[in-house]
Amino acid sequence: MTLPSWLERGLADLFPDAADHRDQTLSARLAAAQQTNRPLRVKLGIDPTASSIHLGHTILYRKLRAFQDAGHTAVVIIGDFTARIGDPTGKSATRSQLSAEQVEDNARTYLDQLRPILDFETPGRLDVHRNSTWLSQLDLLQVIGLLGTVTVGQMLAKEDFANRYGRGAPIALHEFLYPLLQGYDSVMVKADVELGGTDQKFNVAMGRDLQRRFGQPPQFGLLMPILTGIDGVQKMSKSLGNTIGLQEDPLTTYSKLEKVADAVVDDYITLLTNLDPAALPQDPRQRQKAMALEVTASLHGQDAARQAQAAAATLVVTPQSDASEAQVPETRLESFWDWSTPIPAYRLLHAVFKSKAGLDSTSEARRRIQGGALRLDGEKITDPKRALTKGELEGKVLQLGKKTFCRLVA
Amino acid sequence: MTLPSWLERGLADLFPDAADHRDQTLSARLAAAQQTNRPLRVKLGIDPTASSIHLGHTILYRKLRAFQDAGHTAVVIIGDFTARIGDPTGKSATRSQLSAEQVEDNARTYLDQLRPILDFETPGRLDVHRNSTWLSQLDLLQVIGLLGTVTVGQMLAKEDFANRYGRGAPIALHEFLYPLLQGYDSVMVKADVELGGTDQKFNVAMGRDLQRRFGQPPQFGLLMPILTGIDGVQKMSKSLGNTIGLQEDPLTTYSKLEKVADAVVDDYITLLTNLDPAALPQDPRQRQKAMALEVTASLHGQDAARQAQAAAATLVVTPQSDASEAQVPETRLESFWDWSTPIPAYRLLHAVFKSKAGLDSTSEARRRIQGGALRLDGEKITDPKRALTKGELEGKVLQLGKKTFCRLVA
Repeated sequence: MTLPSWLERGLADLFPDAADHRDQTLSARLAAAQQTNRPLRVKLGIDPTASSIHLGHTILYRKLRAFQDAGHTAVVIIGDFTARIGDPTGKSATRSQLSAEQVEDNARTYLDQLRPILDFETPGRLDVHRNSTWLSQLDLLQVIGLLGTVTVGQMLAKEDFANRYGRGAPIALHEFLYPLLQGYDSVMVKADVELGGTDQKFNVAMGRDLQRRFGQPPQFGLLMPILTGIDGVQKMSKSLGNTIGLQEDPLTTYSKLEKVADAVVDDYITLLTNLDPAALPQDPRQRQKAMALEVTASLHGQDAARQAQAAAATLVVTPQSDASEAQVPETRLESFWDWSTPIPAYRLLHAVFKSKAGLDSTSEARRRIQGGALRLDGEKITDPKRALTKGELEGKVLQLGKKTFCRLVA
Repeated sequence: MTLPSWLERGLADLFPDAADHRDQTLSARLAAAQQTNRPLRVKLGIDPTASSIHLGHTILYRKLRAFQDAGHTAVVIIGDFTARIGDPTGKSATRSQLSAEQVEDNARTYLDQLRPILDFETPGRLDVHRNSTWLSQLDLLQVIGLLGTVTVGQMLAKEDFANRYGRGAPIALHEFLYPLLQGYDSVMVKADVELGGTDQKFNVAMGRDLQRRFGQPPQFGLLMPILTGIDGVQKMSKSLGNTIGLQEDPLTTYSKLEKVADAVVDDYITLLTNLDPAALPQDPRQRQKAMALEVTASLHGQDAARQAQAAAATLVVTPQSDASEAQVPETRLESFWDWSTPIPAYRLLHAVFKSKAGLDSTSEARRRIQGGALRLDGEKITDPKRALTKGELEGKVLQLGKKTFCRLVA
């Protein structure tokens, strides 16, 4: 039996992919689900130590949505228990201890960002769990039972542990527990499938082992690629500054997408849209614009995406602009004016760009405006004295000439 | 400051042995205990997976008693929690899961055997704890806190783990938890000193680390040698069959001690008695008898020890007997007579020794008795027809000639 195309799209790894005496194949389990009218439970874990999601994360949620659309149940697990622990060694800056409120805030913000992607409405299609529900109930006896299912050698074979151990970097002992806890989540929600990035194979396999021990049919692991960032080189990651965040506005989103490195455009089409690559324009720029429009629409709706595309056309004039230009810098409105009165256009221009565009004086600013170099969200402003209120400016992009722009924020 | 001689006697290791900026020396802590009239809490753990104790175990209890006699508190911890877990992997035959009742039975039997050694009477000198009291209350959060105090590398540096990992033998992950739980016991009882064998250094050090984390002054580790068995070669161990059990009778105890290998006699004197080695006879046989008498007396009392010494003199005629002879074989009284009537001496002799001493017939047995070859607990029996009741025979040693003997048991 073959897998449906919505499931196979973009897949990096599926395991196990052949039946053994205990496991069905995933196609068989899908067929059984249909026959018995019992939807599969498709698990995906959320780490609520942070709340902002970028496009890289959406690959998994899009696959989860595809399962929902096929009638299955998305089981989203918020890892609030481990998020509240932080790093007990105190050595890791990235795993600081969060309060229950912070974690809950993060989880809510996180889920909100998923609203355009997941089906929150259809009954039975979404189950959200917080793993503190069961993990906070575990006692020492149960923890020992979990630990006893694995050997030290198996843990040290896990790639990231192997690398750290190999170069003598310390691995705190509790880190060995986390893959087991993730596996125990699968037991508690009776997962049929667990979605994850290709870096999750070990943890998903751990869930399979634990499910067997608890007398459950083991889940299938369905691994998706890690998205390359807009630089086209490294994986998309907030710390590398090469992300597109789901909370960014349509214009920024579209502008960044329109400029991602050529090498990753087809990956973005496969992983971030449902478009048929064969039906798209072959011209690289047109193809990229189609991708940018579709991805922006998937996050912000068709209308906003079209407006963003139009605005970007006026903002970004040189198609050869490099990726760094795609990141519109921001200036806070409060930082240069007190807003008890509106600001004249020439003063605005001078205040915002004096350090960037050689605008040494306000008279130079007047001359540039009169020369037609100033735009506000694409609209030309030619009167240097035009009075602009805070309300008129907030959230808009101020543009000087063809390459210099800045978003005005509250 | 020097340590008192009762404390130094037989010591294999004491750590830390010098003051650093946080730790006192043990002598300073002893002095402070005396000044403040606050006895030290001296911890020793008992593993109640088995209930029989042999002489090797008593080294530690003798040291614990010495602390009691100096006014300190013996804190005996019964490891009932871990005993009830067994081996969750099910792979180890030595760590089978025990019921709460079995563990409690073992613990009681174990403690009973310590009655001749420890001071159970003086108020404030003995604290007995079961570690399930606190370990069963630990939740996942606390367990993670404990695990986070150690690195994988530190655990794998522990000698037995290092050996197993080195040769590719599996180490189940929960085994890494046990040293931490033993350390946590030290925190819970606020131990000042932990006693252990030389194989316990890692675990005792773990207790020090955890105590520091919990804001307690870290305990001192006081390690005693592992006793060599009566073969004089390997460590005393039930599985090696070279033990003297505390539940064995005085005669067996004395007989075995009188024949331990010469090489270990002085160790036995140091570790199992309070005798002054310099004040003992220099003649090796006399010295060994003095040791055997004193050790037997420490377990069974002076009178029983003297009787055993006298009985042994009639039983064991060749001083060159090898160690195997010291182990008196046993025969069950029920196995050869129904005891509705007494047994005639010649039938007894024939029944017990026919397979061992070439007693093909009862008439041969009669002849040997008439020839003066039969003794019962050293007393010669010359009438082949003498009628012997079960009560007269139970627990006694039947001896044929100079080298063949057998204990008659119920």
